[in-house]
Amino acid sequence: MSGPAKAKRGIPQKEDFNEWYPFIVEAAELVDKRYPIKGMDVWRPYGWKAMRLIDGLTHAEMERSEHEEYRFPLLIPENLLEKENRLVALLKKARDEGVEPEELRIDEDEAGFKKEVYWVKHAGENELDIPMFLRPTSETAMYTMFPLWIRSHADLPLKTYQMVNTFRYETKQTRSFIRVREIHFFEAHTAHIDEACASRQIDEDLEIVGNIMAAMCLPVLISKRPVWDTFPGAWYTIAIDVVMPNGRTLQVASVHHYRDQWAKAFDIKYEDENGEFQNCHQTTYGMSERLLGAVVGMHGDDSGLIMPPKIAPIQIVIIPVLKKGQEEMVNESASQLANELRAAGFRVKVDSRDMRPGQKYYDWEIKGVPLRFELGPRDIDKNSVFAARRTGGKTPLDRSEIITLAHAQLAEIESELIQRAAQHMKGKTQPLPELIECDGKWTVEGEIADGVVFEIAFDGSDAEAEIIERTCGLTFLGDAVEAYSEPKPCVITGNNTKRRVWLARTY
Amino acid sequence: MSGPAKAKRGIPQKEDFNEWYPFIVEAAELVDKRYPIKGMDVWRPYGWKAMRLIDGLTHAEMERSEHEEYRFPLLIPENLLEKENRLVALLKKARDEGVEPEELRIDEDEAGFKKEVYWVKHAGENELDIPMFLRPTSETAMYTMFPLWIRSHADLPLKTYQMVNTFRYETKQTRSFIRVREIHFFEAHTAHIDEACASRQIDEDLEIVGNIMAAMCLPVLISKRPVWDTFPGAWYTIAIDVVMPNGRTLQVASVHHYRDQWAKAFDIKYEDENGEFQNCHQTTYGMSERLLGAVVGMHGDDSGLIMPPKIAPIQIVIIPVLKKGQEEMVNESASQLANELRAAGFRVKVDSRDMRPGQKYYDWEIKGVPLRFELGPRDIDKNSVFAARRTGGKTPLDRSEIITLAHAQLAEIESELIQRAAQHMKGKTQPLPELIECDGKWTVEGEIADGVVFEIAFDGSDAEAEIIERTCGLTFLGDAVEAYSEPKPCVITGNNTKRRVWLARTY
Repeated sequence: MSGPAKAKRGIPQKEDFNEWYPFIVEAAELVDKRYPIKGMDVWRPYGWKAMRLIDGLTHAEMERSEHEEYRFPLLIPENLLEKENRLVALLKKARDEGVEPEELRIDEDEAGFKKEVYWVKHAGENELDIPMFLRPTSETAMYTMFPLWIRSHADLPLKTYQMVNTFRYETKQTRSFIRVREIHFFEAHTAHIDEACASRQIDEDLEIVGNIMAAMCLPVLISKRPVWDTFPGAWYTIAIDVVMPNGRTLQVASVHHYRDQWAKAFDIKYEDENGEFQNCHQTTYGMSERLLGAVVGMHGDDSGLIMPPKIAPIQIVIIPVLKKGQEEMVNESASQLANELRAAGFRVKVDSRDMRPGQKYYDWEIKGVPLRFELGPRDIDKNSVFAARRTGGKTPLDRSEIITLAHAQLAEIESELIQRAAQHMKGKTQPLPELIECDGKWTVEGEIADGVVFEIAFDGSDAEAEIIERTCGLTFLGDAVEAYSEPKPCVITGNNTKRRVWLARTY
Repeated sequence: MSGPAKAKRGIPQKEDFNEWYPFIVEAAELVDKRYPIKGMDVWRPYGWKAMRLIDGLTHAEMERSEHEEYRFPLLIPENLLEKENRLVALLKKARDEGVEPEELRIDEDEAGFKKEVYWVKHAGENELDIPMFLRPTSETAMYTMFPLWIRSHADLPLKTYQMVNTFRYETKQTRSFIRVREIHFFEAHTAHIDEACASRQIDEDLEIVGNIMAAMCLPVLISKRPVWDTFPGAWYTIAIDVVMPNGRTLQVASVHHYRDQWAKAFDIKYEDENGEFQNCHQTTYGMSERLLGAVVGMHGDDSGLIMPPKIAPIQIVIIPVLKKGQEEMVNESASQLANELRAAGFRVKVDSRDMRPGQKYYDWEIKGVPLRFELGPRDIDKNSVFAARRTGGKTPLDRSEIITLAHAQLAEIESELIQRAAQHMKGKTQPLPELIECDGKWTVEGEIADGVVFEIAFDGSDAEAEIIERTCGLTFLGDAVEAYSEPKPCVITGNNTKRRVWLARTY
């Protein structure tokens, strides 16, 4: 392969993250951005394999938690939105009776949504009677079908999910995996008999997110979004953010508790044990290819990617180190080693290209293969394999115990990645400089550093939150699900509170 | 689940295939057709699982044959078609210099293609400068990128594939899996140094098709389509057809040899060993969710589906037969059995719903679960499991050898399905009644039976083929890849020929 491969020399420093990231996603052959639609990349085999391995983690968790996989159509007829409009109307009514900020925002979001979809109004040579749009997400498609499947309490909980392509007409600058127009997307949608059962689903979702993030060695911030950043029609939203190297937070997953708001709009009812009809309570849980973007950003270094072993398309690359006259013996030994490792479940590649080992090392470093085995005549003589970890460190391994030792090496790499990532995140989190009020005007004592997430104790009002956002030029991520164990004084009111709030610049 | 499930009683006879098929795909909960766009069904978990298992067969074959999985964008800008238009122009030029029928057809097909796509001309509130269409297939998208990846002979062969949703604006009557508007699609695209290498790819494709069809117990007709039914821009097309119970043939796969026709249009060149630039030779290979439609049609019976074991979402269903006071013991024993079978790699479900066993049998028969295990106190006493095969036959199995015996039972079911399907196809293939010419007018001696595929020896011209099609109201499937071993007289010319040609009514 040529093109990006040839450009490998001269990788930007990771410090210059905004240069490094777009370079590395192509140099490592994850995607090709030269497809002639902005924000719609071509997934190359290495990138797609990594994504499918991430999807595999999700599938396994869905199976464990007894979700079932569906596949809904991509196209949604515009008239189905009428039901969503009913939801909006319902919430408007609620607002008139007792204002809540989340409801005040619905209209704008609704309009925003229409601004962000691709429309299909023509097919063949015809103009369609009812325009359709490419799903940005599948609430409307799914909740149209749910009433056909849910009759009685025995049909609940209904736990569905799908992995599909979704679309968003992004007008902002696009970035591979992070902000794209065709999105590889995961969405789980559930229906329950009541609020408490739906709340337990939220707990399960957070456990699932925890498992998936751990497998990718990604530490995360989990917070309940402020009401003005809650998903339209949701009671509350919990979001999962990764702190990227430039200090910006990247939302990689979110879960929403809908209570029965959507069920009312879509007539999703069940007959309870007393023969009475009740509205379902619903939740959703979404993730996307941003997970891969987070892996790239969090773990990479100046030499390229570092793939966490559980999602590495190639876990071990074997480089035969050839010596004249012994080529055949070495190649055969390498191939034997590969087969043995494969039989034990490792994803292995033998690189027998005709080039210097040094150049091969370089290629596999950029692709982030966690473990490299070098095998030459001397290693074979000593019944040994020379191992180099992508996270640093080299060591000979006893050939006769290679399966156990390879497992141990990958575990060590995993633990190193976890440690580094935790350190990175700790280093990126700081207390907010003091806020000072003077004649009703707020200013910051000192500078709002770039590349940092700020943490505050906060129990102020939404209006005060807005003051902080505006004064600091930061976004409220929301209330940490893990609050302070001991109360601290709120940065605005001075009152003691356990509420622990993060602020950041976001993607 | 309600709806279709409640309608299970009163399955149409399979004889009435056009009633049976649409009923069964919903009653077995493969899809739900009530989504408000015609021809866009919702895949339900059972149907989607079966499809994913079929996809799994394909993935395994692709890996074995060293194809790599890509993922291209869904949307294709209209201006990329200019290159395809160049292909058309090229072929027109060739026609002017020496007419070949395949080239005469290009224009119509090109126009037909535009009549069959969904158009995206609007995004948000904007009209797009360049309209885009939803891929009906990905030649244009892929061959736009190929020149960026292929530089030298060392980059060849390039063997790519993807599994994606494709779209066709069908105006004919839609049928689940068989004729739909959003299609779950597989496509492999390869590039080679020359015609001979591309031809070897065609051979490999046919081997792959053979393996996949065998795993689904599906006998097929493999034939080289007549030139007027060759894919636009292809040198030749080989198609794989299944004979459905109503005698109609269903094309489930096709492979195309493009020679260098597309490469010329898309500038897909490589530098050979002498430093000279050569056009690549290309092939494609396509399959779709029609594979599942063929499985449904070929193997089902009056009681519902019969799933071939290799793609059965549930291979073994265990029904605990409860007796008062011993419920716990039986359920525990059933669960133990299930775990043992799962550990051995079987896909197993324990049906512990609170209803009569007879009703459970009915439910799993309609879903086509190949093997049913009944387990009651008496079986447990005898250290035995009572097995019922979906293809017929019941037998007690020794509990202590259950893994081996379960494998044997599934193998027996597989072999029964293969035998039945082969018999079915044999019964559906007949010689064509004699054709008689009188004063330049052709008539058929006798009746063209319904529900039958006809086989003839044929070495006539295209014009004569057209006469047969028109006279009989049948479609030429083409020349069987497996020709006659001994020459036979052509039905038109009377000349001896080994060319074996099939005619049928097609889906």
